[in-house]
Amino acid sequence: MNSVNLELYLVLDPVLCGGEDGMVRTALEAVRGGCTIVQLRAPGWKKRRLAECGRALLKALAPSGTPLIVDDHVDVALAIGAQGVHVGQQDLQPQDARRLMGPRAIIGYSVSSGRELALCAPLVQEGAVDYLGIGPVWATATKPDAASPLGLAGFAELAARRPCPAVAIGAVNAGNAASLAGAGADGLAVVSAICGQPDPRAAAALLLHAFRQGLSR
Amino acid sequence: MNSVNLELYLVLDPVLCGGEDGMVRTALEAVRGGCTIVQLRAPGWKKRRLAECGRALLKALAPSGTPLIVDDHVDVALAIGAQGVHVGQQDLQPQDARRLMGPRAIIGYSVSSGRELALCAPLVQEGAVDYLGIGPVWATATKPDAASPLGLAGFAELAARRPCPAVAIGAVNAGNAASLAGAGADGLAVVSAICGQPDPRAAAALLLHAFRQGLSR
Repeated sequence: MNSVNLELYLVLDPVLCGGEDGMVRTALEAVRGGCTIVQLRAPGWKKRRLAECGRALLKALAPSGTPLIVDDHVDVALAIGAQGVHVGQQDLQPQDARRLMGPRAIIGYSVSSGRELALCAPLVQEGAVDYLGIGPVWATATKPDAASPLGLAGFAELAARRPCPAVAIGAVNAGNAASLAGAGADGLAVVSAICGQPDPRAAAALLLHAFRQGLSR
Repeated sequence: MNSVNLELYLVLDPVLCGGEDGMVRTALEAVRGGCTIVQLRAPGWKKRRLAECGRALLKALAPSGTPLIVDDHVDVALAIGAQGVHVGQQDLQPQDARRLMGPRAIIGYSVSSGRELALCAPLVQEGAVDYLGIGPVWATATKPDAASPLGLAGFAELAARRPCPAVAIGAVNAGNAASLAGAGADGLAVVSAICGQPDPRAAAALLLHAFRQGLSR
């Protein structure tokens, strides 16, 4: 299993960030505020645009060493040399992603239920998956096709059985960050808690502070 | 440049074919009627479904040696071991597709204007592109986001300058097949002229017959 710092996982939203330039700016500010890993996710975009934006993000993130994860598109990740890919239950199988990306790539997988989680253990054992995104914890507007929310108790139940590190996702914000740390999250995945915020750097710092407070309780 | 028989290029439409099973049946019947190459194109599908359908098509097409081309998704093509990929102007760059797919893969590229065609010659020279899809020749319902139609004269103008073999696409049918052969097409790319037809095998044979008549004039 490749080790990765999941503490504050930013999922960039092209609309909330206001396009490519805004995505790069948001990512850089968030990293200055403590964000540890960045995902490029733009389900409505064609791949040429994704690749261009991804290359700009890679360049911007290189000095800090922050890994860039591409949502869904293994081919875009390979073409631009991103550090990893995140796949969902309807995307390519994690085993296929691993075979194409090689052993050093970071591969994440989305899990929304106990049944899906149970099927993950062998994927982690065989080295296909490095981390999980467990959610949505709460209902979110930034992913209209998401599964039904788990709630905090439902998240804690899944997190207790996680076979590898996992981030909590779905309406995560500074107000619930500490409770998620207490519920077993290894990190927070956020969209609107950073994207579109007036000060993404301060927003990131606040999230991280709240999460760490929850860990130390 | 990898050599490929483009004479009758079937682009499978999941709706017209009635889902996965219908796509496999349509492809097999079309091949029996003379179809030389098959493309899997389902823009609304997620990749796990695409990969599953693609694997079923590969298995069905293997005995005849008919190549399977995946539209847009280089990662799906790689994951399932398809013979090639077709990219459009907004998809991954053909050079990226070539780098990821290797020298033996069949790589096609869509061209809709003289400007786009002019930019293709170096791509062909450097070995990134094996064939072109030139169109739409006429307006078509099966690709709502297509560029404006070229018309037969416009197609002929582009085909005369093609730096590699090219198929005509866009409302191609048995009635206009001969004229496209006369206008310089190396093959016909069809969707609704085969998909959803009561007898896809007979439809393919009719298209091929008309195209060859046009060539021999």
